[in-house]
Amino acid sequence: MHTETVDEQCVTTLRLLAVDMVEKAKSGHPGLPLGAAPMAYVLWARHLRHNPLDPSWVNRDRFILSAGHGSALLYALLHLTGYDLSLEELKNFRQWESKTPGHPEYGLTPGVECTTGPLGQGFAMGVGMALAEKWLAERFNRPGFPIIDHHTYALVSDGDLMEGVASEAASLAGHWKLGKLIYLYDDNHITIEGDTTLTFTEDVLARFQAYGWHTQRVADGNDLEAIHEAITAAKAERDRPSLIAVRTVIGYGSPKENNAACHGEPLGPEAARKTKECYGWPLEEAFYVPQEVREAMGRAVAEGRRIQDEWNARLDAYRTAYPEEAALLQSFLAGTLPHGWEKHLPLFDPAAGSVATRNASGKVLNALADVIPNLMGGSADLAPSNKTFLTQGGNRNLHFGVREHAMGAVLNGMALHGGVRPYGGTFLVFADYMRPAIRLAALMKTKVIYVFTHDSIGVGEDGPTHQPIEQLASLRAIPNLTVVRPADANETAAAWKIALEADGPVALALTRQNVPVLDMDREKLFYGVSKGAYILAESAGPPRLIVIATGSETHLALEAQKVLEGQKGIPTRVVSMPSWELFQRQDAAYRDAVLPPEVTARVAVEAGSSMGWHRWTGSRGAVIAIDRFGASAPGSVVMTNFGFTVDNVVASALALFSTNSR
Amino acid sequence: MHTETVDEQCVTTLRLLAVDMVEKAKSGHPGLPLGAAPMAYVLWARHLRHNPLDPSWVNRDRFILSAGHGSALLYALLHLTGYDLSLEELKNFRQWESKTPGHPEYGLTPGVECTTGPLGQGFAMGVGMALAEKWLAERFNRPGFPIIDHHTYALVSDGDLMEGVASEAASLAGHWKLGKLIYLYDDNHITIEGDTTLTFTEDVLARFQAYGWHTQRVADGNDLEAIHEAITAAKAERDRPSLIAVRTVIGYGSPKENNAACHGEPLGPEAARKTKECYGWPLEEAFYVPQEVREAMGRAVAEGRRIQDEWNARLDAYRTAYPEEAALLQSFLAGTLPHGWEKHLPLFDPAAGSVATRNASGKVLNALADVIPNLMGGSADLAPSNKTFLTQGGNRNLHFGVREHAMGAVLNGMALHGGVRPYGGTFLVFADYMRPAIRLAALMKTKVIYVFTHDSIGVGEDGPTHQPIEQLASLRAIPNLTVVRPADANETAAAWKIALEADGPVALALTRQNVPVLDMDREKLFYGVSKGAYILAESAGPPRLIVIATGSETHLALEAQKVLEGQKGIPTRVVSMPSWELFQRQDAAYRDAVLPPEVTARVAVEAGSSMGWHRWTGSRGAVIAIDRFGASAPGSVVMTNFGFTVDNVVASALALFSTNSR
Repeated sequence: MHTETVDEQCVTTLRLLAVDMVEKAKSGHPGLPLGAAPMAYVLWARHLRHNPLDPSWVNRDRFILSAGHGSALLYALLHLTGYDLSLEELKNFRQWESKTPGHPEYGLTPGVECTTGPLGQGFAMGVGMALAEKWLAERFNRPGFPIIDHHTYALVSDGDLMEGVASEAASLAGHWKLGKLIYLYDDNHITIEGDTTLTFTEDVLARFQAYGWHTQRVADGNDLEAIHEAITAAKAERDRPSLIAVRTVIGYGSPKENNAACHGEPLGPEAARKTKECYGWPLEEAFYVPQEVREAMGRAVAEGRRIQDEWNARLDAYRTAYPEEAALLQSFLAGTLPHGWEKHLPLFDPAAGSVATRNASGKVLNALADVIPNLMGGSADLAPSNKTFLTQGGNRNLHFGVREHAMGAVLNGMALHGGVRPYGGTFLVFADYMRPAIRLAALMKTKVIYVFTHDSIGVGEDGPTHQPIEQLASLRAIPNLTVVRPADANETAAAWKIALEADGPVALALTRQNVPVLDMDREKLFYGVSKGAYILAESAGPPRLIVIATGSETHLALEAQKVLEGQKGIPTRVVSMPSWELFQRQDAAYRDAVLPPEVTARVAVEAGSSMGWHRWTGSRGAVIAIDRFGASAPGSVVMTNFGFTVDNVVASALALFSTNSR
Repeated sequence: MHTETVDEQCVTTLRLLAVDMVEKAKSGHPGLPLGAAPMAYVLWARHLRHNPLDPSWVNRDRFILSAGHGSALLYALLHLTGYDLSLEELKNFRQWESKTPGHPEYGLTPGVECTTGPLGQGFAMGVGMALAEKWLAERFNRPGFPIIDHHTYALVSDGDLMEGVASEAASLAGHWKLGKLIYLYDDNHITIEGDTTLTFTEDVLARFQAYGWHTQRVADGNDLEAIHEAITAAKAERDRPSLIAVRTVIGYGSPKENNAACHGEPLGPEAARKTKECYGWPLEEAFYVPQEVREAMGRAVAEGRRIQDEWNARLDAYRTAYPEEAALLQSFLAGTLPHGWEKHLPLFDPAAGSVATRNASGKVLNALADVIPNLMGGSADLAPSNKTFLTQGGNRNLHFGVREHAMGAVLNGMALHGGVRPYGGTFLVFADYMRPAIRLAALMKTKVIYVFTHDSIGVGEDGPTHQPIEQLASLRAIPNLTVVRPADANETAAAWKIALEADGPVALALTRQNVPVLDMDREKLFYGVSKGAYILAESAGPPRLIVIATGSETHLALEAQKVLEGQKGIPTRVVSMPSWELFQRQDAAYRDAVLPPEVTARVAVEAGSSMGWHRWTGSRGAVIAIDRFGASAPGSVVMTNFGFTVDNVVASALALFSTNSR
């Protein structure tokens, strides 16, 4: 091994810092850093335009470590180039409350652009970042003013390229002609189970060419100049995204090189020592950083300041030349909503008849798009059904194709890039297809809005494959995700307000079928929805029974109340509960006011799984739900046959009430 | 339009039966049948080897309508070729309890090989069927005795080919050299949102060539001879799977042809009439089937009987020549387990120390593989971690690569094919990636076993991206899926017994970390696990407190019991609850015996989401769970910091007990 030039010393430092981090943690992945350090170094030292002292500078190049298990390499890069990540943090790799967790976590470590680890996600999020960059550039750049003009880079692995989400995203990137997307493929021929010949024998570059990508191959992953030239060529290509397959050797320089054994566990003290010997590195001092390396890589700080200053000057000139555009761009980047935007939320009149909440959502979305000019998105080929199309939206309308998973990840990438407010739609049942991306949204708290329509067996004829059952429960189980299932058109408007103001992802569950519009004061309704649950219809006198409902079943609850109070004389409260998460966030006083602990006769009605409802009904309550798959028939027939009728709500309540009266 | 030859009449009948079905149902998808009927007809009339009177004949060719929304076409084919599907059923399309639901449903309609509708799944299940065929053929065929020798066909759409799961499966099919897999691609250039140029501009055939597929193009989807020749050429290709892109026109012959408007809704009476005019078809009589068509297509019955008789004769000769193989094949196909197999379940000795349940699972699996010779599977590139490798398994070890979703669908296809008992492994958190396939397994009740290891924050250093939180809850929410989270090595053996005997899919949730082996009578333990929950450690005297636990937290419950009973004098019962679903299936008497209603002081402890636990603890109980994402640190540190300690269980119980004493 040569460790003579400063370049080589830098590469070796990256490699061996990673080895030391993993050794000290007694846990981690040394193989990738040892193999991929050269390409990462060339990219960071000669191409990446970033400012370590301002990791949120909007025009920085993005770098994604899609192969997130190589986190030690990323932390070493961040440390050496001057990000706020001390050597102490590197020594605390994978420890409680360190800034150097096992996989890169967005929001925790400066310079980490997104949370990675689940394979394929980083790849697909980069597509979203590049898309946001392209859209903003087209919207704001003017001749001589390339205000938004940066690349999106990623380091991707075999595993990333095997994942379907990456395939979907690659097809979109080619279609969208994201020429400033450049991915380095750590082509090491090794997966956890062994050689890639075991299961990955496709012609990867030919596949990417088929997607419309520019592809290159670097035969020797240690050839810094060849890597440099390939990246340079990729940057010169402006229309096609680039994939550069760099042939590397996993665990390079260690006794376990070219072996899956060095992928996911420490080399061990003996092998680590031999690796250092191989690189001619000091054996005694762990975490050794030569002064030349510190200086060479530390230049990123001054260079970063210089390029950001340059950009700031350009922005100042732009502000003078294009004051309106500059102001709008600034508001986009700040992520603030236009003053008074909420006044544009449409009001739905009960007298005008029933409205499917998906249709209400479409109206709300279009009204908001007029006043929030960076609200943009689309659907996974279901826009006419999801009502996600912006009639005045122009190029804010995205077409994801039948690629729910990539859509989810692209939405994350767009939100992470900033400057845009992304949404995406599909049928609620197909939220399953994008679940790993939803989970990452929740983990990163990206401001993404999911428009999930066709939210129950009410879907009807399309049958069980298209009728969600467990989806509401399984989305509610995801931490940090807010699920809102509005009862009518006006609750839908309120739900959109919540979605736009939330500090994390929000999923809207909307009906295909028409539902009556609630006759209720708008302020009260908006307030109620913001609390997650509220008294929609109060009993005459103190309640002795509570019917809790969400979405399309809320009108059943209201009808049942008429029977229970009017005919049976049981004081019955109806609680509309569009969002469990929001309700859980309220204080006990509010929760007890809506669901008084002493009223144990409670019926919950929701056309979905019963999972979790007992929390709200208590041991003595009843849950009208559906714990089997649906059936193909007209929606009203299915609803009736599965017990979502006024009669059944009344009957359940009576049965319960008779044993729960106090 | 020509409707002169009998072939043409048959095609027109298929087209217009589908139109009539959709019109009568006032719901459905006429576009695909109108465009794709010719290719479906050529395949069924000239190539498909099947016996309509015995849809379960093992050596039949499989046909999958991956574009399940075209179900009307499939039902018309089944009806006309003599399957037990009457014209009345066609008239009952998409109605309650008909055999002609909106999307094809396995188990409901004779001749439907799998449930389709969620796009990409049929494509990927076909790969599993072809894999099972290939494996059985290699295992059992002898010179002159091609006992298992059939093709797997599918009709796939743009949407199928955009889905990541299909990309993953296509790569696997190429890798596995599934030469008898032949897919017809209904290349109609239209998706729901419009023309495929909106979002699907990749070079599909080049992509499939990169996967190692044989590809062909048929320029005119109405050219029966060209389709026939392409299928013939595909059959001649024995090493590569085939994709035949057939250029069709959606809604062909209707006023809405080549328009997304005819994809998912009825043509309407006027357009339907014009379509019939276009084909020179009688306008008055709906569901018209010319006698010539009935005779021509009905020949499939005699032909099917003939080929199955031929095969039966061959099987008889095989039985004589290879009696042992024939007997083994018969047992494989019957799906029965070898007599006494359960005696091979290993026993784990508490004295031998703690064992991670994933390790126990690996031992159980290997012990069973010796006695169940068609137990086969693998992992999505995590075999060393999932412990799914069969050391004596030979070609029963599959390598899915980092393709969880395709793995899930391939397992379904294998199970549907029959003759094999498939399992697949990944980390529990990545069950999310394969969720749509798991849902289909549950819907179809395929006998598939999921080996989900690394089942909690106990994963440790890999951090929140790798630590499941909501996965247990979200899997439990899926109807028909049995989730088992065993407490120790012996419960793991019991869980495998359940998995192999279940009549549907089973998911095992297993620890990465070591857990003590329970000191308990094996019979009692196996019985208890089979009930879903049981009294693991009884209180001294009638219980006043119940601690319910699953998996790795069970030993915390046992330790807590010692403190609560021994030091605090509170009679405390410990309930091990490895499977909610199994417990729910028990009668009330059993459930009440384990969880007596009068004991309201209950603590549940599980390192996962609290979602759903209140059902078991009741309103007055406490749940020790984790409703946020995890953290990167050594597993024991994470567990402790999130409250999974004996002290916390004791404290929670005491707090509760003090307010719940009776």
